[in-house]
Amino acid sequence: MKLLFIGDVVGSMGREMVEEFVPKLKEQHQPDLTIINGENAASGRGITENIYRQLEDAGADVITMGNHTWDNRDIFQFIDKASNIVRPANFPQGTPGKGMVMIQAGSFEVAVINLLGRTFMNPIDDPFPVVKKLVDEAKRHTPFIFVDFHGEATSEKQAMGWFLDGKVSAVVGTHTHVQTADERILPKGTAYQSDVGMTGPYDEILGMEKEAVIKRFVTSLPVRFEVPKTGRKQLSGCVIELDRKTGKALSIKRILINEDLPFRLK
Amino acid sequence: MKLLFIGDVVGSMGREMVEEFVPKLKEQHQPDLTIINGENAASGRGITENIYRQLEDAGADVITMGNHTWDNRDIFQFIDKASNIVRPANFPQGTPGKGMVMIQAGSFEVAVINLLGRTFMNPIDDPFPVVKKLVDEAKRHTPFIFVDFHGEATSEKQAMGWFLDGKVSAVVGTHTHVQTADERILPKGTAYQSDVGMTGPYDEILGMEKEAVIKRFVTSLPVRFEVPKTGRKQLSGCVIELDRKTGKALSIKRILINEDLPFRLK
Amino acid sequence: MKLLFIGDVVGSMGREMVEEFVPKLKEQHQPDLTIINGENAASGRGITENIYRQLEDAGADVITMGNHTWDNRDIFQFIDKASNIVRPANFPQGTPGKGMVMIQAGSFEVAVINLLGRTFMNPIDDPFPVVKKLVDEAKRHTPFIFVDFHGEATSEKQAMGWFLDGKVSAVVGTHTHVQTADERILPKGTAYQSDVGMTGPYDEILGMEKEAVIKRFVTSLPVRFEVPKTGRKQLSGCVIELDRKTGKALSIKRILINEDLPFRLK
Amino acid sequence: MKLLFIGDVVGSMGREMVEEFVPKLKEQHQPDLTIINGENAASGRGITENIYRQLEDAGADVITMGNHTWDNRDIFQFIDKASNIVRPANFPQGTPGKGMVMIQAGSFEVAVINLLGRTFMNPIDDPFPVVKKLVDEAKRHTPFIFVDFHGEATSEKQAMGWFLDGKVSAVVGTHTHVQTADERILPKGTAYQSDVGMTGPYDEILGMEKEAVIKRFVTSLPVRFEVPKTGRKQLSGCVIELDRKTGKALSIKRILINEDLPFRLK
Ligand SMILES: [Fe+2]
Ligand SMILES: [Fe+2]
Ligand SMILES: [Fe+2]
Ligand SMILES: [Fe+2]
Ligand SMILES: [Fe+2]
Ligand SMILES: [Fe+2]
Ligand SMILES: [Fe+2]
Ligand SMILES: [Fe+2]
Repeated sequence: MKLLFIGDVVGSMGREMVEEFVPKLKEQHQPDLTIINGENAASGRGITENIYRQLEDAGADVITMGNHTWDNRDIFQFIDKASNIVRPANFPQGTPGKGMVMIQAGSFEVAVINLLGRTFMNPIDDPFPVVKKLVDEAKRHTPFIFVDFHGEATSEKQAMGWFLDGKVSAVVGTHTHVQTADERILPKGTAYQSDVGMTGPYDEILGMEKEAVIKRFVTSLPVRFEVPKTGRKQLSGCVIELDRKTGKALSIKRILINEDLPFRLK
Repeated sequence: MKLLFIGDVVGSMGREMVEEFVPKLKEQHQPDLTIINGENAASGRGITENIYRQLEDAGADVITMGNHTWDNRDIFQFIDKASNIVRPANFPQGTPGKGMVMIQAGSFEVAVINLLGRTFMNPIDDPFPVVKKLVDEAKRHTPFIFVDFHGEATSEKQAMGWFLDGKVSAVVGTHTHVQTADERILPKGTAYQSDVGMTGPYDEILGMEKEAVIKRFVTSLPVRFEVPKTGRKQLSGCVIELDRKTGKALSIKRILINEDLPFRLK
Repeated sequence: MKLLFIGDVVGSMGREMVEEFVPKLKEQHQPDLTIINGENAASGRGITENIYRQLEDAGADVITMGNHTWDNRDIFQFIDKASNIVRPANFPQGTPGKGMVMIQAGSFEVAVINLLGRTFMNPIDDPFPVVKKLVDEAKRHTPFIFVDFHGEATSEKQAMGWFLDGKVSAVVGTHTHVQTADERILPKGTAYQSDVGMTGPYDEILGMEKEAVIKRFVTSLPVRFEVPKTGRKQLSGCVIELDRKTGKALSIKRILINEDLPFRLK
Repeated sequence: MKLLFIGDVVGSMGREMVEEFVPKLKEQHQPDLTIINGENAASGRGITENIYRQLEDAGADVITMGNHTWDNRDIFQFIDKASNIVRPANFPQGTPGKGMVMIQAGSFEVAVINLLGRTFMNPIDDPFPVVKKLVDEAKRHTPFIFVDFHGEATSEKQAMGWFLDGKVSAVVGTHTHVQTADERILPKGTAYQSDVGMTGPYDEILGMEKEAVIKRFVTSLPVRFEVPKTGRKQLSGCVIELDRKTGKALSIKRILINEDLPFRLK
């Protein structure tokens, strides 16, 4: 039983990478479920219904989100109808959308949970009790539980990984837009990676036009951050193999595709 | 011309990894200079003169620091005498120690600069103009310039990398204690990696006892973070090859040693 | 029906001001209930059982706390027995102590609630739904509800004031240690003041020895903040008059006592 | 020798209060110089050239700014020509505008300095060495030095006050939009107040429409903050009397005008 996860898709270049390589990655890895973080899919800021469909067409079974969930107002029109989009579960009660989806992946049912971190981020409900409750609920249905923990601080991400070790199949981080090299199977069987990295421009800063970001740091003047539409691109993700009986992780492998690390069918 | 860099050495387990593997890594890679970040070497909090000597004995030519520079008061006694310790250059004027050292590495002279980030960190002088000035100064002596950028935010780290691309040999991050997989040579010849990761406990949170860190997140009660002395260990670093004439980077390779990824002489 | 509230008592100088002036203020204002914020009463860091008793002896009916609640470990020994101490209600479930106390004040029952802000503070549960639930509960017993909102940001404090306008008798802020001059009765009858200010040293910084705090800002070096035991002192508070039937606020008056503004029986 | 200072003018309602009451306050207090913080004068976000002229026409001799200096792009067109606008002095070198202006006030020359705090604010140059240098420069010309310290944290503001005590005539804070009641003359002769408060809507949150701000806190959903154009208004300020020889402060008095505290000619 395999999961393919693709990190923060940023703008049109990110979507192009998904369209080009997700089919190839599926062919290569034969995942039972493909999950894509789409919080930056619409020009770096949120997602639209069209782009949501576009990502589904490109192979996504579930779309996870993050702190940019609401950046594009379009989401308020479709999130409650869309069955395969998960926004952070620790938004306050009454928030549109849902924080966990149960999805059929071949003969398997998989729970996909999205969470927001709090360290160095905006105040939000505590993700620890929220995830505990969701995991208890999911466990009644399935041993296959995937958590996209969208957070900034490595301490909080590692704490979540160890907190959930043995309780879920995988805790994989998003949000920093930089892939970490710490993928591993924790002692009780949970796959963990602090951040899977982003999918989009390869020669910019977190996917935003680098001259603007540097100008902001150097001058402290206000700058409009734009997502470029042309240039070299990258895709970041991971593939996780789970035990078909127990849902425990057997392996986690990083995926990084760019001009320096071209895709190769192995 | 090769540089070996080892990331944040945490406590006695970190020092043990340095003592065991730095000699082996030197044998394997034959670096001209070995640089070790020692900001957490003394029980996770700063460094002492004894530990500074111990790291030198284990093979360090230069010790870089970070936000924990002053945690152990011992440093005020020896930093101004110690010729091979570099603390962040963007501390205010009048701060003990120095932010750049020029060191002889065989027939090469190398400038080693240490900088602190500001995003999600304590207020400090702007690292961008500070590094610009130091690089201009170093350039008059040598094309070999190594920057340890000790920061939290991936945006600020990438901005520094692109800001210095073509001006220095390498910009390698520390502080998050998690190795990133984004090592690359930027277009103008600077080696870049957002974070090289930490050296110390393998089964804890950033090197601190994980039960305490989780308790802190879950309860919001005050907790004393301790660095364990026993358990499985890891070492994180990178090796960078520079052009002997221009100082430009030819390659950067991540190093990660732990029980899951044992050291192998290749 | 009158409430006397005294802001963050800092160290021995703060306690001395309470002992000297709370009796005089009681004589002057004849409050039905006296509430004192004691989060810094023990050398600036938390409270001990002895100091809790001492503040009660000096005239406190209820002690409120804040982000420093747990700084002195003594509190874990007595908070669950102490009937008149309120810690922030939006600590996670399972936290020792309670976030609201109901107390008899002559013929009146008063609910005293303590809350922590989140803006520019550590992550914690959302105070808005927490206070809503507590107010609903308190309302079943009494119209007299006092909220000590311990927070940093004026935006969050004002938001809480307007959020609770007409639902509670008073929302008075603590934590910044500086008295604000914005005391008023909001349109629906809630007394509001962004911060009542602190009680303790008059010639220091937030009650901490000023040379150390300045040194910290100027040098960025670590500094131990101590609370002085001698010097000029101040007391900060307010007195709120409530309608005996409806619990709505009729007036709120600031109290500030120091050498420049000496206490006078009017 | 007297200075009149008016805090953060927010939007059209703030400007209306300035136009209505600054003439009356001038009549009442006969200040030699009138300083107005205009960082929010244009719909809460920055200032335009027209509004700058409008504030001058209403009686401002100098306009100070803050973190919102650049919110309205119009400022880049006129700041370098405008002789009486001061933006924070601790923006990076090369920033448009100036951080100190020397202005003739009758027979007196007055230096007006604007500074940004760093605690709980965006990274910026250290205000302490910057102000020290400016004060040294100003001292060569005049003993009358006024500092508008635009900051969030009471600790940093008090530290600046004590740091400059005896070196400048006054350190008065802005930015929190809430007037503090801690105005005083520090022992060496500097007038100090943590925050002078804001000028604009009286029944909103920091001048922004309160329903939106509350919605933001309660739902964590994105909200557009608007400055209302109608409703009850307030004006916040202070008047400082200086010794005509030494420039030392003799008195500082808060000014607060709203429907609950109507203006009265005394
Ligand atoms: Fe993202
Ligand atoms: Fe994000
Ligand atoms: Fe470190
Ligand atoms: Fe660090
Ligand atoms: Fe306090
Ligand atoms: Fe506090
Ligand atoms: Fe403002
Ligand atoms: Fe401001």
